[in-house]
Amino acid sequence: MNVLEERILKDGVVKEGNVLKVDSFLNHQCDVELFDAMAKEWAKRFAGKQINKILTIEASGIGMACIAAKQFHCSVVFAKKYKSINIDGDMYISQVESFTHKETNQVIVSKKFLNEDDRVLIIDDFLANGAALQGLISIVNQAGGRVEGIGIAIEKGFQPGGKFIRNLGYQLESLAIVDDMDWKTGTITLRKQD
Amino acid sequence: MNVLEERILKDGVVKEGNVLKVDSFLNHQCDVELFDAMAKEWAKRFAGKQINKILTIEASGIGMACIAAKQFHCSVVFAKKYKSINIDGDMYISQVESFTHKETNQVIVSKKFLNEDDRVLIIDDFLANGAALQGLISIVNQAGGRVEGIGIAIEKGFQPGGKFIRNLGYQLESLAIVDDMDWKTGTITLRKQD
Repeated sequence: MNVLEERILKDGVVKEGNVLKVDSFLNHQCDVELFDAMAKEWAKRFAGKQINKILTIEASGIGMACIAAKQFHCSVVFAKKYKSINIDGDMYISQVESFTHKETNQVIVSKKFLNEDDRVLIIDDFLANGAALQGLISIVNQAGGRVEGIGIAIEKGFQPGGKFIRNLGYQLESLAIVDDMDWKTGTITLRKQD
Repeated sequence: MNVLEERILKDGVVKEGNVLKVDSFLNHQCDVELFDAMAKEWAKRFAGKQINKILTIEASGIGMACIAAKQFHCSVVFAKKYKSINIDGDMYISQVESFTHKETNQVIVSKKFLNEDDRVLIIDDFLANGAALQGLISIVNQAGGRVEGIGIAIEKGFQPGGKFIRNLGYQLESLAIVDDMDWKTGTITLRKQD
């Protein structure tokens, strides 16, 4: 079991509606030592890949992406979310539907910071239905770059995003995969990984 | 001249309305090697302070705060911005007026992650009028904690925030202070620092 999995079992809190609260170490308070261990695990899993840029999305992905960038010796670009924005020729844009907040955001990246030479590692904190991830992959494709891999902290294995992305042939490395949660008992069941 | 100052003169772009664009290295694309150098400079300037927590605000502060946390061996808490939120007893809340977007946000931090034992270093990317910073200081005060210092990447020295905060007695360390900008000539004048 890796350190993130151990931490989820210790400090993750299950709430009604399949919500897993990890705000004490991942997405409100950030345990940077944990991020460091996660970054090293991603570096191991993506060893040999030619990665020159990490792409993430504001806000929760930024911290772990910056710590990961120290392992991959590359820069980070974070996509920005807007409720609505006038289409501007200088931006890659994708539509991302948020299931948590029941709204659609436009996710944008400046064309200056992503192009056809980029070999991109996408990093994010959560993968459930995969809406945000689809938006980020779309942006790399618009740029003509290549998605070398996808590093996720926590995948909700009972939602379809992860399977869909793996079916498309991407190397998706989720450090923890939650197969089941029960808010009444507080039980979290993690998928066994090698 | 420190590396951030050199980088601003090299890659910062002045736009009409006293806008300094640093999105190629600071707040859209993130140069993590630069963040590392900035973190070391803050560690030097705040040497001897007992800091056990870094407080920042989403989104642009998070990356540099996480890299700085590796120098200070502490965790990061990032304040979240909401257009409006029902007052919830579990949150510290402050009002922050954004001059860029002409709107007021509520800035919140969960009470779980900040308390009277905390000795806080506040980190943010920009200081101009100091609206965001006032909100963060207010939150530390609500928690009964102590602001040990404030680390800013870029201060706009021709706007009143920095002077106001220094007058209150806080140790405010801005790695670069822009005293003047001219979008017509692209000139950026930095204040001399020791």
